[in-house]
Formats: sequence, C-alpha cells, structure tokens
Amino acid sequence: MCQPVRVSAESTDPPVCVLGLGLIGGSLLRAAVAAGRTAWGYNRSAGAVDEAVGDGYDAGTDLAAALERAQTEGAVVVVAVPEPALDAVLTQVALSAPDCTLTDVVSVKGAVLAAVRRHVLAARFVGGHPMAGTAHSGWSAGDASLFRDAVWVVAAEDDTDPEAWRQVAHLALDCGSVVVPAGAREHDAAVARISHLPHLLAEALAVTAAAGGDLALGLAAGSFRDCTRVAGTAPDLVRAMCEANSEALTVALDEALRLLSEARDALAEHRSTETLVHAGHAARLRYENLQRWEITDITVGEPGWAPALREAGRNGGAFRDRESFRPA
Amino acid sequence: MCQPVRVSAESTDPPVCVLGLGLIGGSLLRAAVAAGRTAWGYNRSAGAVDEAVGDGYDAGTDLAAALERAQTEGAVVVVAVPEPALDAVLTQVALSAPDCTLTDVVSVKGAVLAAVRRHVLAARFVGGHPMAGTAHSGWSAGDASLFRDAVWVVAAEDDTDPEAWRQVAHLALDCGSVVVPAGAREHDAAVARISHLPHLLAEALAVTAAAGGDLALGLAAGSFRDCTRVAGTAPDLVRAMCEANSEALTVALDEALRLLSEARDALAEHRSTETLVHAGHAARLRYENLQRWEITDITVGEPGWAPALREAGRNGGAFRDRESFRPA
Repeated sequence: MCQPVRVSAESTDPPVCVLGLGLIGGSLLRAAVAAGRTAWGYNRSAGAVDEAVGDGYDAGTDLAAALERAQTEGAVVVVAVPEPALDAVLTQVALSAPDCTLTDVVSVKGAVLAAVRRHVLAARFVGGHPMAGTAHSGWSAGDASLFRDAVWVVAAEDDTDPEAWRQVAHLALDCGSVVVPAGAREHDAAVARISHLPHLLAEALAVTAAAGGDLALGLAAGSFRDCTRVAGTAPDLVRAMCEANSEALTVALDEALRLLSEARDALAEHRSTETLVHAGHAARLRYENLQRWEITDITVGEPGWAPALREAGRNGGAFRDRESFRPA
Repeated sequence: MCQPVRVSAESTDPPVCVLGLGLIGGSLLRAAVAAGRTAWGYNRSAGAVDEAVGDGYDAGTDLAAALERAQTEGAVVVVAVPEPALDAVLTQVALSAPDCTLTDVVSVKGAVLAAVRRHVLAARFVGGHPMAGTAHSGWSAGDASLFRDAVWVVAAEDDTDPEAWRQVAHLALDCGSVVVPAGAREHDAAVARISHLPHLLAEALAVTAAAGGDLALGLAAGSFRDCTRVAGTAPDLVRAMCEANSEALTVALDEALRLLSEARDALAEHRSTETLVHAGHAARLRYENLQRWEITDITVGEPGWAPALREAGRNGGAFRDRESFRPA
C-alpha cells in the first residue's frame, strides 16, 4: 500500500456540516477542523453535543439550524447518523439545505442511494464509506486520526455531479484517507466479501467452537482468537450491516459455502483438500502483495469520467493527492 | 486464564531425548535445558544439528545412538519429527529404547496413538500437544520461551501409565506450559473446532474475497486481515493437519455449514440473522471470560485417575504446578 500524503485544505474549500457525532461523525468533525476546514456538527442527543463543545468544537442539537447554515455557507453536508435516523435527516436536508453537496459514511451504499433518490436529493449526492472504525462508539471514542491511511470509498455513479464528487474526495483526503472510486453496487458486493462475510464466518466459528465445551475453548489459540475477534462486535451492528446488504452477502455466502462443502466432502471421503487450501493461500498472498496505484489520467468531469474512475478503482487505482484529479 | 508458575526441574527428573529439531523440537530442547534438565537432540539433516551444536546444545544425526543413550539413562523420548517420518522413528524407538517413556508433539493425537499401538509402544506412551507455534520453522526459529503460558495437552487414556504421564506432564510444566489433560479422541474433536476449522474458513474467505478482485481486496480491513491470517500458513501444513483429522473436522464443518446455510437462507428471504449473530457473540464472550481452574483433587495413578483427569479437562481444569498432582 502507498503512504498517503497528508493534504491541507485550501481557502476555497467549502465548510463541512457533520450530522451525527458518534464515532465516525465525531472523528470526521475533528479531522476536518485539524485539516483547517471550517466545520460544525449536529447531534440529536445533547450529551455528545456537550462533550464536543467542551472539547472546543462547534456543535448543536438544532438540525434545521445546522442545515440552514450549510445552505447559506455552501457547506458539504455529511450524514453520519445511524441508519434508522436516515429518513428523518434526509427530510430535513431536502427542506433546509437542498443545494448542498451531500455525502454519507454508511457501510452499505445501495440502500442509502435509494433513500437519497426517494428524497430527490441525488443531484448533489456522493456516497462515501471510510473503511475505519474501532470497537467503541460515541463522541468520546472519536479521534482526528481515525481515517489516517484508511481507504475511503467515494462513489462515482453515472449521474454523479463531478464538482460534488471532487468536494467529497477532497474532504476524504483532508482526513488523511486514500480515496478509492467505486459504484454503490460494486462497493456493496466488495464489502459483502471482505467485511460482512468474515463477520458471519466468525459468528459460526465461535458457535461451533463453543459447542465443543470448555475443553475446546480452553485449547483455542491464535487462529481461533483472530478469526473470531469480530464476533465480539455488538450483535445489532453486525445484523444491521449484514441485513442491509443481504443481496450481495447471499452471493458471497453461496460462494464460501460451495468451497467449504467441497472441502467437507473431500475430507469425508479421505480425499485431498488441496484445491481449497492452495487457492486460499494464493488468495491471501495476493492480498498481502496488493499494490495500489495513483490514478493520474482521469479528469473528473470529462465525458465518461465516472465509469473510468470505477474501472480504475476495480483495478486497484486510488487517489492520495488532490493534484491527481484536479481539472487540467 | 491463570498465570502459570515456572517450575524448575528436580534432580530426580529423567533426562530428555528430543527427536527432530525443527521449530517445536528445537524449542523443546532449549526449554528443557533452560529448566535444568539434561537433554539431547537428534535430527536427520546435519544442518539443524550443526546449528544446535553451534548454539551450545548436545545434538547429533545418529538416531540409534540418541535412543540407546535414552534407554541407558532412562530418558523421556519426545517424537518431534514431521508426520511422514513417524513410522521410521517409531521403528527405531522399538529397537533401541523400548522401555523409555515416549511422547510426541503432533497436533492430531488419534493417528499418532494408532501408530504407536502398531509399533507396540503404547505401554509407556503419553500423547502430547503443545498449543504453540509461529509462522516460521526450523531450528533457527526455535525459542526456549515458545511454550511459556501455552496450553500443553497431555493425553490420559484408560491404559496410560501413570508414572509416564507424570513425567510428560512435568516436562510440559518445566517448559512453562499449562497442562490440560484430555483423551486423544476428545483432543482431536476439540482442535478440529478451534484450529482446523478456522484454517478452512480462512482459506474459503480468502478465495471468496479474491473473487471480488482488487477492489474487494483493496477495501479489506481488520476483519478480513485477522480472519485470513492463517491462510498464510504453508498449504502442506494446513493439509496435513486437516486431513489427519478428517473425521472430527467433518463433524465441525457440518455444524458450521448448517449455521451458515441457515443465515444464508434468512438473508435471501430478508429475515433476521439474529439467531446466528447473537449465538456467535455469546460464544465469543464465553471464550473471553473462560476461567481455567487448578486440578488439585486427583492423584495420578489412583483407581480411575485417567477418566477423572479427562473429566476435569473437559470442564476447564488444568495443572500449572507439580505440587497439584504429586502423589499424596
């Protein structure tokens, strides 16, 4: 992986309005301010707002006021609320800040895009997903460096506004992330394979091991510990991710089930497990040796830019430098 | 988990003859010497022997000589050769050191027990499995502290010689390990669940993720990285473990496949994944909170001692102190 170059905001960068001050929203507000951006936050409950204000940040509990300011100042609006609150927040965005560039940080992009389209907010919407997190939640768990060196997917659909895309990508770079362009659908297919599937495998492994009683759990060493680590995640978060991405996750699960069933039959018949084991080893080496390359030959806004960015993202391309996608 | 107390060898402890100076055997030779035991090693290839001698250890390439000395000095013989060499080594043990206490460090106990019975060496045999390792191999990768705080399964079958069992358990304690008693069959069932199953899940996850191309692999973060770590293990080692334990692993795989198939059907029908996710979370918490307790009420050699030790091991019992199982 490349080392992202930290980019500082420029005076012409729009301010940032963060809706929801949990782990991700709270970290984003901190990171935007640390990068020199004007930024303010909204949170429904006063607790996080009090903490944020106590830490020196601009935050409040009045959603309409935060969004009216965003509309006036031409801010980028970042939706970082839990998914059940999405519709209520988008209703207010449509009322108070319909002209702002709008993005989000939710881990399943198809469902958010559909909601944004229902609220007729797609014209300035750019889906986002910073691949970062911790086991903790809430404002106090946040950290300005949470996104440093992380991958931040910025969705490029055929109808995405190029100026809005640039603004969201700049914000991700300002937070220290590497920007990977992708479509919502292919993003969801990818995270089903590399995030939601490991969560379900971890749950199934933990249950199967525990069925072996304290002897089995007591013999568990590194392979079990590492592979089940994410089974320690709050069940509601795991369910929310997996169930919101059920279509893509079913495809990934079917592939994994087929591989495991074939290995199971081989073992039952005292045949070799070579097919799975060698393919798995090769795949892990491919992951370890993956090279990310800088996209430098696509001007955002030129004809066909969005499909070209998606194609680059599919092939390991990324942005780590604003200079790479500034219009010629 | 308890903190094992480091126990030093006593002058009456038998010497130790280690056959095979790879990672495990080489670490065991170092650990036995560090604990004050007289110990020597054998290795088929001269390279490891030269390295061991260069490091100040007593080692040679003459298997018969190493075993004849073991027979003369009443040593505990530890078989630490790769599984394909097992039969050849046991043939020589039967010829040169038939009266020695014999143990091994192989990860599947049923197959070794069967081989030992074929060679009519069961009378003084006690199966062993230190749950320790690294991604590296060979003498140079060894470390006297490899077994520190690790679990070392010492097999207690109905016909196990109690004095031999004590000698092997003492050696494991001298190496800094916690001794968990178990039968070969239940050991193999347990490690299928907590070691061999995670290896196959890791392989299947890696393959399924790589099928998502560089976009999927490029978005992979902690859950994928940790869950597939063991897919980096040499394929031949993974195959050897899994295929030698095919019966128990098939049972564990069937349980995991059933859990995953139920979750797959729930997702496909837009139902909840609550059953699996909550059970997985509870199982992981049970693992994290597992308490090991010291076995103090069983005298090795008293009538019914082996089934009693197995029962204790099934319920989380272990030895970390020689005092606990010294005859009254």
